[in-house]
Amino acid sequence: MSTDNLRIDAERLRTDIDQLASIGRREDQGIYRMAFSDGDMQARDWLMQRINDAGLSLYQDGAANIHARLGWREGVASVMAGSHIDTVPGAGHLDGALGVLCALEALRALKEAGTGLKRPVEAIAFSDEEGRFGGLFGSQALAGQVTPGYLHSARDLNGVTLVDAMAAHGMDARAALHAQRTADSIHAYVELHIEQGPVLDRQGVSVGIVDAITGLFKWQATLTGTANHAGTTPMNMRTDAFQGLTEFATQIDRVLEEHGSPASVATIGRVELLPGAANVVPGQAVFSLDVRDTDASTLARLGESLQRTLAAIARRRGLMFEYEVLSEIAPVPCAPLVRHAVEQSVETLGIEATHINSGAAHDAQVIASIAPAGMIFVPSKEGRSHSAAEWTAWNDIEAGANVLLHTLQRLAG
Amino acid sequence: MSTDNLRIDAERLRTDIDQLASIGRREDQGIYRMAFSDGDMQARDWLMQRINDAGLSLYQDGAANIHARLGWREGVASVMAGSHIDTVPGAGHLDGALGVLCALEALRALKEAGTGLKRPVEAIAFSDEEGRFGGLFGSQALAGQVTPGYLHSARDLNGVTLVDAMAAHGMDARAALHAQRTADSIHAYVELHIEQGPVLDRQGVSVGIVDAITGLFKWQATLTGTANHAGTTPMNMRTDAFQGLTEFATQIDRVLEEHGSPASVATIGRVELLPGAANVVPGQAVFSLDVRDTDASTLARLGESLQRTLAAIARRRGLMFEYEVLSEIAPVPCAPLVRHAVEQSVETLGIEATHINSGAAHDAQVIASIAPAGMIFVPSKEGRSHSAAEWTAWNDIEAGANVLLHTLQRLAG
Repeated sequence: MSTDNLRIDAERLRTDIDQLASIGRREDQGIYRMAFSDGDMQARDWLMQRINDAGLSLYQDGAANIHARLGWREGVASVMAGSHIDTVPGAGHLDGALGVLCALEALRALKEAGTGLKRPVEAIAFSDEEGRFGGLFGSQALAGQVTPGYLHSARDLNGVTLVDAMAAHGMDARAALHAQRTADSIHAYVELHIEQGPVLDRQGVSVGIVDAITGLFKWQATLTGTANHAGTTPMNMRTDAFQGLTEFATQIDRVLEEHGSPASVATIGRVELLPGAANVVPGQAVFSLDVRDTDASTLARLGESLQRTLAAIARRRGLMFEYEVLSEIAPVPCAPLVRHAVEQSVETLGIEATHINSGAAHDAQVIASIAPAGMIFVPSKEGRSHSAAEWTAWNDIEAGANVLLHTLQRLAG
Repeated sequence: MSTDNLRIDAERLRTDIDQLASIGRREDQGIYRMAFSDGDMQARDWLMQRINDAGLSLYQDGAANIHARLGWREGVASVMAGSHIDTVPGAGHLDGALGVLCALEALRALKEAGTGLKRPVEAIAFSDEEGRFGGLFGSQALAGQVTPGYLHSARDLNGVTLVDAMAAHGMDARAALHAQRTADSIHAYVELHIEQGPVLDRQGVSVGIVDAITGLFKWQATLTGTANHAGTTPMNMRTDAFQGLTEFATQIDRVLEEHGSPASVATIGRVELLPGAANVVPGQAVFSLDVRDTDASTLARLGESLQRTLAAIARRRGLMFEYEVLSEIAPVPCAPLVRHAVEQSVETLGIEATHINSGAAHDAQVIASIAPAGMIFVPSKEGRSHSAAEWTAWNDIEAGANVLLHTLQRLAG
């Protein structure tokens, strides 16, 4: 294994990125490749053609995940790398696509180098990561988490069912129940992705070694006071629901400092005041609270503390307070096996890297339930994400792709 | 003038209130008598019939204001009392109606007492106080403030023009330009109204002697930061527009204490966050700010201070800040002539009263531009206003009506 000098073919990768970026693009509006849409189907056809062109074996499982395989041997655990090629509406050209194309390029480079690898290597494009029908469909199918109930109920915002959307392209959604891979069939999973946040860009570092994917809880909370005439109600006779919310919002930093970690974030992104007129003291404030951390017990402590803070403010101000948990996702630490392989690859290549957490959800956190999983980040210019303005410098992409290549080589070698 | 024993006929007033309350009422939804609607027209017909029944002379001016007149002599300044009988949709039975019916009852009582009065006395019901077509139409016409431009452009939320709405009932809106009364034709104007706030109700006092009608300014302000992914953006890399707004909101009490008066109130009643998703750090917060006081220079000081506060917060947090003045209304002090007459009447009658300001707009503040004007308040149960649940205890109504009667007698005597 003459491996330290192994590099990806930067021109070939760049051509792939440019070609895929042209599929589903609407001028000035970004890319539209929502799962099983015409754009997504064109991109799938293009990807399968590229896999064939590379002389890799092609496999599509029951969830329509597309696998490129090198040195496949049934019964031998593979090293897998990938991401997704579906997009949100109006997307940039890198979210998901970069992870798939770097994995494909890594397989081509490994194939050309002809170095004997102990394990098969797979590049994978997971179906519907972005959530036209709910999100993370392909990786959940691979992890055995898709249920018949989900297959029956999944539909997009226009009411189109997953079953119909797949049938329109000759695919049977029920086959997703048979896409499950056993834990012993995957030695490790590595996903390269743009950071979707500003940390690497601000630090001027090319590669992030991901330590954990954050978990979260999302609440919808309501403070209820009394709606009153804004002119006739003296300040000391009000129970203003918005004033309760503002006091709570100003306490969030304190709660994060006292009960959180440096990775903790909390966001109030949606607020509705009722009745919502300029001349009426707000009787009700309905708001979202999104809280994330990489550690489950820290998240639990934050939840308790935020609830206590809100309850105390409500009690003191004579407001009623209730909340509903909209979602809860457990944090996932990246596997030491993968993290160490990434660290060693970065060192071999002499690339500047830093440790980082993922604040967004990824297929990797689903695959982590059946196999050691980890991630490699490259910078997002100004943290832009889910936007046509998404951008990563080419030298960072090349650095990330080479780290992925070396990581796969180490894990498979 | 054997005047101290003069009282209104409580039964007759109560009957009028009950009868008018049944016009335009929709079961369980309150009263619908928006200006020049069928309900309003029925109420006008009923009122004119009651004026005729009472043997008072009836006059309708070009703005469709209905006048009941006692002892009318052209060229002698009258004492006028009134309010409006149009309502907001889903209204209670007292807002406006009580002031008109108490004035009518006072004229009947004065007529029956036969006490010789030096001046004519008028009861008036002003058109469109509540604003189907903009508000305060009748009183503005009387004060010479209605312009041809307003008449051409005024339309309701459904696009119906004021001109068409009046024409449907055989009235010519352009005649409102001729409804103006000269300043020397009105000796004083008195308006009895429910408080629409909680102050008298909390204090358990029957009558409020109104010192001033508050002025206001209303802004729409915008704080602009950067929208970012709520998971991937660390707390210290955010420019969260909502956090800027919450800091400002918590400063409002301090600004009122430092630069306002005990009458000052400030309200944030409407907030919109953009993009407004639970998992996105808000890039923009658009909000209303409604500030009121009885003194023009205090209002100006509050405006300056709130602007400085907002600008400082924006600067420190790296947010952009802009605001638009949506409306500005100057405060109106009540005329000493009327205030003293109300004070003396309260004393004569031995009724518990307190001084108070009006936080809401009334026809009185328009009439104040051409004549000495003042107001008498009666309590609103729990401050309820513009609601079918609006309520005032009968003994408070009777006390207020007698104060109005004595006030008119003093001003006309």
